[in-house]
Amino acid sequence: MYKPSIPKGMRDFSPAEMAKRNYIFNTIKSVYHRYGFLQIETPTMENLSTLMGKYGEEGDKLLFKVLDSGDFTSGVTTEEFAGRNAAFLASKMCEKGLRYDLTVPFARYVVMHRGEMVFPFKRYQIQPVWRADRPQKGRYREFYQCDADVVGSDSLLNEVELVQIIDTVFRKLNIRVAVKINNRKILSGIAEIIGEPDKITDITVAIDKLDKIGLDNVNAELRERGISDRAVEQLQPIIALSGSNEEKIARLRSVLAASETGLKGVDELEYIFSMLKGFDIAAVTELDLTLARGLNYYTGAIFEVKALDATIGSIAGGGRYDNLTGIFGLPGVSGVGISFGADRIYDVLTQLNGFPEESMEQTKVLFVQFGERELSYILPAVAQLRASGVNTEVYHEAAKMKKQLSYADTKGIPYVVLAGENEMNEGTFVLKDMRSGEQRSLSLEELKASLA
Amino acid sequence: MYKPSIPKGMRDFSPAEMAKRNYIFNTIKSVYHRYGFLQIETPTMENLSTLMGKYGEEGDKLLFKVLDSGDFTSGVTTEEFAGRNAAFLASKMCEKGLRYDLTVPFARYVVMHRGEMVFPFKRYQIQPVWRADRPQKGRYREFYQCDADVVGSDSLLNEVELVQIIDTVFRKLNIRVAVKINNRKILSGIAEIIGEPDKITDITVAIDKLDKIGLDNVNAELRERGISDRAVEQLQPIIALSGSNEEKIARLRSVLAASETGLKGVDELEYIFSMLKGFDIAAVTELDLTLARGLNYYTGAIFEVKALDATIGSIAGGGRYDNLTGIFGLPGVSGVGISFGADRIYDVLTQLNGFPEESMEQTKVLFVQFGERELSYILPAVAQLRASGVNTEVYHEAAKMKKQLSYADTKGIPYVVLAGENEMNEGTFVLKDMRSGEQRSLSLEELKASLA
Repeated sequence: MYKPSIPKGMRDFSPAEMAKRNYIFNTIKSVYHRYGFLQIETPTMENLSTLMGKYGEEGDKLLFKVLDSGDFTSGVTTEEFAGRNAAFLASKMCEKGLRYDLTVPFARYVVMHRGEMVFPFKRYQIQPVWRADRPQKGRYREFYQCDADVVGSDSLLNEVELVQIIDTVFRKLNIRVAVKINNRKILSGIAEIIGEPDKITDITVAIDKLDKIGLDNVNAELRERGISDRAVEQLQPIIALSGSNEEKIARLRSVLAASETGLKGVDELEYIFSMLKGFDIAAVTELDLTLARGLNYYTGAIFEVKALDATIGSIAGGGRYDNLTGIFGLPGVSGVGISFGADRIYDVLTQLNGFPEESMEQTKVLFVQFGERELSYILPAVAQLRASGVNTEVYHEAAKMKKQLSYADTKGIPYVVLAGENEMNEGTFVLKDMRSGEQRSLSLEELKASLA
Repeated sequence: MYKPSIPKGMRDFSPAEMAKRNYIFNTIKSVYHRYGFLQIETPTMENLSTLMGKYGEEGDKLLFKVLDSGDFTSGVTTEEFAGRNAAFLASKMCEKGLRYDLTVPFARYVVMHRGEMVFPFKRYQIQPVWRADRPQKGRYREFYQCDADVVGSDSLLNEVELVQIIDTVFRKLNIRVAVKINNRKILSGIAEIIGEPDKITDITVAIDKLDKIGLDNVNAELRERGISDRAVEQLQPIIALSGSNEEKIARLRSVLAASETGLKGVDELEYIFSMLKGFDIAAVTELDLTLARGLNYYTGAIFEVKALDATIGSIAGGGRYDNLTGIFGLPGVSGVGISFGADRIYDVLTQLNGFPEESMEQTKVLFVQFGERELSYILPAVAQLRASGVNTEVYHEAAKMKKQLSYADTKGIPYVVLAGENEMNEGTFVLKDMRSGEQRSLSLEELKASLA
């Protein structure tokens, strides 16, 4: 027999998996709405002219390209084909590609729709993206991103609210997290002070290893990476930076005294941390200079979120960028945003056994079917329960009781209603709790009250 | 300046459009859950071996095909390319294609996962599909389908519940509808009786024109379509079928007395209509013999839903099929399902001005920002409102009042809070209703009570 399969790196989601995924998505959505972010969606396919060149040379190779419909060979001569240049041929045969992330389509959206938008524009977007990466554990070729961005506002209040959003989402999900915060301007200031403006990445990568390899090895690595002895000397107070966020900020302010950019970064971080103190934040918030994600992209705050009770990479992150739409010829649109990694959050909740036992989507009660007469008796009750908002099923046929209860059991339905000859005579229903096994005889009103 | 665009036949959805679309999707989802249907998702891409040949020759042409990553030319000789056979070349260069509907992926899902499924399996699926059709008004190359199916049950209770689902969804959306119901077995019976088993489509198409062209022309058309005079004679009571559903059923029972299949269809319809009588159904339910949708697919009940107050094609439909998974070598899996046309429902609600004025997603209140001191005063109130579930925004900077109010206005935010020197001294907040213009001075507790 022919066995169907799905493309590698892609997934089916069963009802049980969807309920858990929706729990995560709905939590994130509800918090986004709580802060005034509104949803948009962009098409699965974008013109390749929109996508190409936006993710580096490697990214271009990872784009899924869609063959033009009709005679896709018409733009290619046989000689050109014989040249076997895949990138060139693809550019002649494919106009469209699949979304690689949500940021470039959003930038394209802002440029196309700016006339009809209110700024600051606070949008969120939860959609799948596709990358022709080599699949491996935890890395898929189709996965969802959950982004929120504010564009058209320089106010640091946005950064503060984004940290609050992160905190609220993980508090609702019962995941303890640390939010690490850095600022690109501070990193630029450091590089400026030590006279090594091109070495920011080398410096942060080396400093990040302090815990693992110790100070001497960090310094050795810095020298290996071409940082001068004098600069390594100047970096010592920064490598050794420790204490509370306030202490770190005070130290940075003195080290960066000669860098206008650096001091601007310190001011920004100080504002964010002091504002956050006014709120009841459960997350650990921590100034972390080694945070260098999206370095050639972010221009101000940089965020990264780690789960405290699970060993997994970052589960959310983001930052401020100065030039979202420059790639499409519209300069001066700055913004700040965050993104939740739904698949990793799923893995953390699985590790922590943290999904709620019952989901909103689940069926709450199954009516057992004994026969046509009993069916006529139960159907009005079923209709009333559904009308009052209870997810209700009737077993589809008068099968053996064992089979019907096993259906409830396998589907995780917590209650079953039995109504046979006796109940029909009395006008009652027997409600059985599938976990405790307890049975109660109830009137329709009592049944509704028990299940609503 | 370079002007970005999106591929033809595809759409961006703005926050206002998304709120309306989510209103439709959430309504459908909640009703599906109410009846015990659970969500699944399948990947955007399927292997082309799964999709090809399932939608007819025309359908194969409308599939979007995804170019293999890496050296996609390796399986094609230059001579083969010179042959310019697009279908052949695509089959060599593309392993994957985009989902064309939700039915074939669902059939593939059932075959792959049947070992871990409970039957009857009641699943719903709301995902986009793609067709390389010529775009035109109301026809897109990317659009959502909203399908629910029960597989592994022959019980007619499923048909009854699907009609109840249709009724509940449109009642919740405040759209008056007619649910037209037919049965493939009756059509087969009619063809059998008149000895024209291959002419079912010709007969239904001709009968469907009765209102427009009159009986004489219908009969003329039937003869043109190759139906014998004698058969046209036999069809007269069926063409003239009218009255209540019960009257139609009684007439059909006598006309089809000699067809076992036909009578089975009559029995099924009678059961469905009599069961529906036991419920409070708002929709007009009507036996309609001209309903012939999906004729080479459906084997029992056929449903189609029309809006009564808008001129638009069918907005939902479905039916029973005997062989969902036969195409993948697994026979004997029967099912019954329905599908809502979200884009058409959107158009109907737009025509009827039927979207609710306020959406759950909208921001409910904007706090105006007067300056840093006032900001410190309002932020704890903002946090408390958010914690109690109120979608709340703070204007991002201390701009002119007019600009801040205009932001609220454009975004459709119904309330604004003003708190300056006076309010800070009194510990109060001024709540302004943006529609009536009414302003009230409130304590924090009163504010929360007013907005919750």
